[in-house]
Amino acid sequence: MNKKSIKERIDSLRSALVEQDLTAIIVPTADPHLSEYLPEYWQAREWLSGFTGSVGTLVVTADFAGLWTDSRYWVHAAEQLADTGISLQKLAPKQPNHIDWLAEHLQEGDSVAVDGYVLSIAEQDRLLNAFDVDDITLITERDVLASIWTDRPALPNAKLYVHEAPFVAQSAASKLADVRTGIEQAGATHHLLSSLDDIAWLTNLRGADVDYNPVFLSHMLISADQAILFVDNNKVSADIAKALSESGITLADYESVQDALAALTPDDLLLLDPSKVAVGTLSKMVDDVGFIEQMAPSTLLKSVKSEADIDHVREAMRQDGAALCEFFSTFEQRLANGERLSELDVDSMLIDARSQQPHYVSPSFPTIAGFNENGALPHYRATPENFSYLEVSEGEGGLLLIDSGGQYQNGTTDITRVVGIGQVSSEHKRDFTIVLKAHIALASAHFPEGISSPTIDAICRAPLWQAQMDYGHGTGHGVGYFLNVHEGPQGISYSAPNTKERAMKTNMITSNEPGLYREGKWGIRIENLVVSKPVANPTETDFGKFLHFETVTYCPIDTRLIDKSLLDSTEIEWLNSYHQSVYAELHNRVTGEALNWLTERTKAI
Amino acid sequence: MNKKSIKERIDSLRSALVEQDLTAIIVPTADPHLSEYLPEYWQAREWLSGFTGSVGTLVVTADFAGLWTDSRYWVHAAEQLADTGISLQKLAPKQPNHIDWLAEHLQEGDSVAVDGYVLSIAEQDRLLNAFDVDDITLITERDVLASIWTDRPALPNAKLYVHEAPFVAQSAASKLADVRTGIEQAGATHHLLSSLDDIAWLTNLRGADVDYNPVFLSHMLISADQAILFVDNNKVSADIAKALSESGITLADYESVQDALAALTPDDLLLLDPSKVAVGTLSKMVDDVGFIEQMAPSTLLKSVKSEADIDHVREAMRQDGAALCEFFSTFEQRLANGERLSELDVDSMLIDARSQQPHYVSPSFPTIAGFNENGALPHYRATPENFSYLEVSEGEGGLLLIDSGGQYQNGTTDITRVVGIGQVSSEHKRDFTIVLKAHIALASAHFPEGISSPTIDAICRAPLWQAQMDYGHGTGHGVGYFLNVHEGPQGISYSAPNTKERAMKTNMITSNEPGLYREGKWGIRIENLVVSKPVANPTETDFGKFLHFETVTYCPIDTRLIDKSLLDSTEIEWLNSYHQSVYAELHNRVTGEALNWLTERTKAI
Repeated sequence: MNKKSIKERIDSLRSALVEQDLTAIIVPTADPHLSEYLPEYWQAREWLSGFTGSVGTLVVTADFAGLWTDSRYWVHAAEQLADTGISLQKLAPKQPNHIDWLAEHLQEGDSVAVDGYVLSIAEQDRLLNAFDVDDITLITERDVLASIWTDRPALPNAKLYVHEAPFVAQSAASKLADVRTGIEQAGATHHLLSSLDDIAWLTNLRGADVDYNPVFLSHMLISADQAILFVDNNKVSADIAKALSESGITLADYESVQDALAALTPDDLLLLDPSKVAVGTLSKMVDDVGFIEQMAPSTLLKSVKSEADIDHVREAMRQDGAALCEFFSTFEQRLANGERLSELDVDSMLIDARSQQPHYVSPSFPTIAGFNENGALPHYRATPENFSYLEVSEGEGGLLLIDSGGQYQNGTTDITRVVGIGQVSSEHKRDFTIVLKAHIALASAHFPEGISSPTIDAICRAPLWQAQMDYGHGTGHGVGYFLNVHEGPQGISYSAPNTKERAMKTNMITSNEPGLYREGKWGIRIENLVVSKPVANPTETDFGKFLHFETVTYCPIDTRLIDKSLLDSTEIEWLNSYHQSVYAELHNRVTGEALNWLTERTKAI
Repeated sequence: MNKKSIKERIDSLRSALVEQDLTAIIVPTADPHLSEYLPEYWQAREWLSGFTGSVGTLVVTADFAGLWTDSRYWVHAAEQLADTGISLQKLAPKQPNHIDWLAEHLQEGDSVAVDGYVLSIAEQDRLLNAFDVDDITLITERDVLASIWTDRPALPNAKLYVHEAPFVAQSAASKLADVRTGIEQAGATHHLLSSLDDIAWLTNLRGADVDYNPVFLSHMLISADQAILFVDNNKVSADIAKALSESGITLADYESVQDALAALTPDDLLLLDPSKVAVGTLSKMVDDVGFIEQMAPSTLLKSVKSEADIDHVREAMRQDGAALCEFFSTFEQRLANGERLSELDVDSMLIDARSQQPHYVSPSFPTIAGFNENGALPHYRATPENFSYLEVSEGEGGLLLIDSGGQYQNGTTDITRVVGIGQVSSEHKRDFTIVLKAHIALASAHFPEGISSPTIDAICRAPLWQAQMDYGHGTGHGVGYFLNVHEGPQGISYSAPNTKERAMKTNMITSNEPGLYREGKWGIRIENLVVSKPVANPTETDFGKFLHFETVTYCPIDTRLIDKSLLDSTEIEWLNSYHQSVYAELHNRVTGEALNWLTERTKAI
């Protein structure tokens, strides 16, 4: 990005602020669906600032321009923001965020604009709470950028497609009935869904409007007798329209959701998730319609997979595991042959390997391949402008962290492995082994059914804490079924509120990914996906039902990085048993070098 | 209690409801200070219902009378309520409580009375939230019982006394300055304290208005230039009044707190903890005074002990440990001699033993001595009407759970031990050993400084969960310094919200008390008090500061109940090292049989 044009854009924005009598503008990284990956149409923050990270909030006033982003992007953002006049504001716990900054710097009578279409109701509440004492006006109904962003990209127009029949266990009509039960239980008359994975799950449709998540831009409005899918008509084939109609779902234009909501009356009660619906979507509603703000019923329904879904996921995991055997054996062979490989090669080789597998659709998120100090940045992404070669000096060693995943029609995968390059040290091994202990602690834990998922985080972290180590990210996120690789409601993260909404239920798919990051040195993360299952043959029944995790990711964990003296006998037993199952699941699916690699790497320690 | 007079009291109450045009009355177990132990003056629920348990809420309407209480009291309450016309309502998770019952059974236009003096602001909010849709009126300003409870006991009148100088590290004036800093940080002009332990801590005074907690009935109102202690003047000696005055604290009559609050103006902002202030206390306030509802500053200040406090507590723990050696050696000797002892003897023997120690004041809570099935009731209390003898049939065995504690001027103690009677079985040992594993897991854990205390509960429970076992109470509560044996803000209980308020800080004293209860069989709990301390010589410094627990309770854990094959080497090491320290701390303080007992019971396994 040309730094001069960034300056010009900020100047134009400031002129617009003056013209429109605004003190400040907030430009978040968000869209009307509060999605993780945004269509270019809503990448205003990137367009204005030149900063390409996936998270950040830009605030501009007459004499200030600052971009708040979290630690994983600080180095990157500092480079991209240099000489633009935009300051990097470090987003960190206990540090003031953009709301705190505004609350401190604005004065009574000031006006702040933020586009309501990219502002969740929950975020608006936070802004209003911060501002209310000082009588600052929040303006959400204006598109301040309209006159500036003249070459704004169009909305995406990828066609919808059907989640293939053999992989779908429940019809859209049946899912809709379940959602209606949830609406009724909440006491609502209507339910607005703007979250794209909820809609894709509910309709059994998929799309390609954004990268990595197979979703399509849409809203849904559901009442007892109507279910309207608001989506660009050009994306919908006649067959899909017919199938939807047979499921009781009618079509309407994507933009018309606001008019449909405008028809609600004060007798209606609208159920919505305030963190998943944008203020702008509701902008035409009459004032007196009541809200019930809670998690959408589909969010929980979607997270609890059917036995059939889980069976498909196990198969997708075998495919993914076979692809990883092919990748790792080739990768290690090429390195051994003295080839000069980079972090970027890892990404392309992984995509190649996964593409050979049936039902493969795309990566499930951007591959993280971080060598040594790059691995210490938990969300590092190598780019053609900025990447490392996988090479060390004679006698030295390093660690390569690879976090990747695939979207398959029969499942979504997400796995992190660490590879030693050169001569790894005892420090490398100690760190790796302690992370492995944490991984095993969670993988083999039992816990009460329905416990709030943040509660069990401490079981995983205990071995790291014991060594006075920790990591700054969550331990586990929910994973969709051929859907978003990050989904709720469960999340194994002690910093999340331990509410009932986050209860651990049978047949949820969650990641188990403790890590350790030594700034400037290396990063370690060991990630498998796990399915929560009831304990099969309970030895006790007086104390309620207990769940445990079935690990469904099949790929060797590099035993050459283990300091065995740090493992106790139950940990060694877990590891050997895991490798036995990896071999059993994969050995019929690979041949030649890949089979040799699998055989070698699943040997008991 | 005569069941007939209970019926008559309920009948009189119903007449009062009719006269006063009320649909229902709620009689909670509470006082204006939301204390754990109530003066008789506020034991209206017991007087009306005849139920003597420490927790319960009575609801009476024209055709219903029900008492909600939790599982520990169900058996007891069923007996006491039989033939009174009052039904036992079982209070349990996911079961309707009295608020749910009222919300379901009351109709639009109904009026519910509850004495505002025994209703916290937080509880009033819960009632109003439950009622608001249905337009039910909550009446808190009437003393409906006035005409019925004619022989109501007087308020207690015990004299205040000074927490003795050598045991007090910080002056009242200095504590007051710290509290004022907290008031200022909260942005308030005034602060109302009704919680008795906060006031006792702040003034360095103690009292004897209730059992077990050395506190006195009072309120405090603190502003930048005034600190008023509202207390019955007859309880305050001239010396204490003078000392208070020198600390900047003025005296006013206990009842006059309402008038003082009535003097606040709309320019004032009153800080209070809504769960620790009664609605009635505020009843004369003008409407426009603003509130800041949050934890009182003293609650956190009080929980973080000074190094000097901790040193005194260690000494109190040595005294308590010596008393326990005397008790256990005598107790076991008497049993061995074939004496017929009961649960009640345990209580009196413990009080005898502790009374020999310097600075002893009283028990810190009612002793729980529960043999076999009685031990399975976590808050069982033997009474002269209802207790067990500690005897088993030939060749059989049983477990006796003893939970007790003392108030000493130099510390508050709380300890639970389990004693085997007769021939204990392998089941007894397995259960005991798994609880011990849980105890050791928490006792030896490291965790990040400032982590919310509910988060670490899973570390303690993991060994029990692994065996598909659990217990229904919290793992740890804060403990006061010659103050309440139960205090906040920390609490190791995964069912509590994991908020920042509950952060674990250095020098908090907390209990470590996992348990296991087999209904109708036996109960096990192993409880020590622990002090949170920074890890002394950190081996890592890149991942923040870590705390660990110093166990300060010195008393053997019965190794004869251990199945050693279930312990791993680090657990055995912890236990042996603990017993080594118990011996080191106590062997100079006991002689004869008690020393023999200590020596025997602290031998390494």
